[in-house]
Amino acid sequence: MEKMIGIVLVSHSKKITDGIQELINEMTGNQVKVVSAGGTDDGRLGTSAHLIMEAIHDCSECKRILIFCDMGSSILSSETAIDLLEPELRDKCLIVNAPIVEGAFVAAVQSMVTTDIDNILDEIRNMQNSMPV
Amino acid sequence: MEKMIGIVLVSHSKKITDGIQELINEMTGNQVKVVSAGGTDDGRLGTSAHLIMEAIHDCSECKRILIFCDMGSSILSSETAIDLLEPELRDKCLIVNAPIVEGAFVAAVQSMVTTDIDNILDEIRNMQNSMPV
Repeated sequence: MEKMIGIVLVSHSKKITDGIQELINEMTGNQVKVVSAGGTDDGRLGTSAHLIMEAIHDCSECKRILIFCDMGSSILSSETAIDLLEPELRDKCLIVNAPIVEGAFVAAVQSMVTTDIDNILDEIRNMQNSMPV
Repeated sequence: MEKMIGIVLVSHSKKITDGIQELINEMTGNQVKVVSAGGTDDGRLGTSAHLIMEAIHDCSECKRILIFCDMGSSILSSETAIDLLEPELRDKCLIVNAPIVEGAFVAAVQSMVTTDIDNILDEIRNMQNSMPV
């Protein structure tokens, strides 16, 4: 089965992205392609455009690649990574401006029933609207 | 210095809450009381009302205790934990309906400049409004 949607996780903490990946794999029975790209190249707190590029390449067979970031420079590093990609792969990528844990989880579950990006983003919006603080 | 605001982290994954705790400690120079209470008692995926109670007790010297959850049963387990507390401690607790990584981070940073809960919740709302998907 072709994995249609890929999910790339970018946090300043590798523990956080490893944890989200593990949780998604457990909840979806490993049916969703999800790659952890948190922390620096050597696992410290921070982000790495190089690591994010590798994670995106790891999803190259996917139709679309959704990238979830935690804050600030994780978005900048993801943008840098995307800029450095070959155009064909770059066009598949979308940075989703949503909470990293909850957003990635909703995207993963929803991508099991549809590959329509608008539909997946709608579900993430519904989740966010259910969090009035 | 009395730690005025305590933050308790409840996710289905201990890696996620350990990662958030580490990130907050790094970003705030260990100035904020933050306790990781993710996973089950033996570190598997899931949640534990018992572990959450212990985390809340660990914040008992705080004026208020903000609890951040990831999804579904993490909120239920937190509610159960709060119900089992002695009234004085229970009254300090507030489950914040916000993204766990981004919400806890904003709360931690903001709690370094104010102990006013409404002000902290406002900052979390501003963060959420800046995420239009």
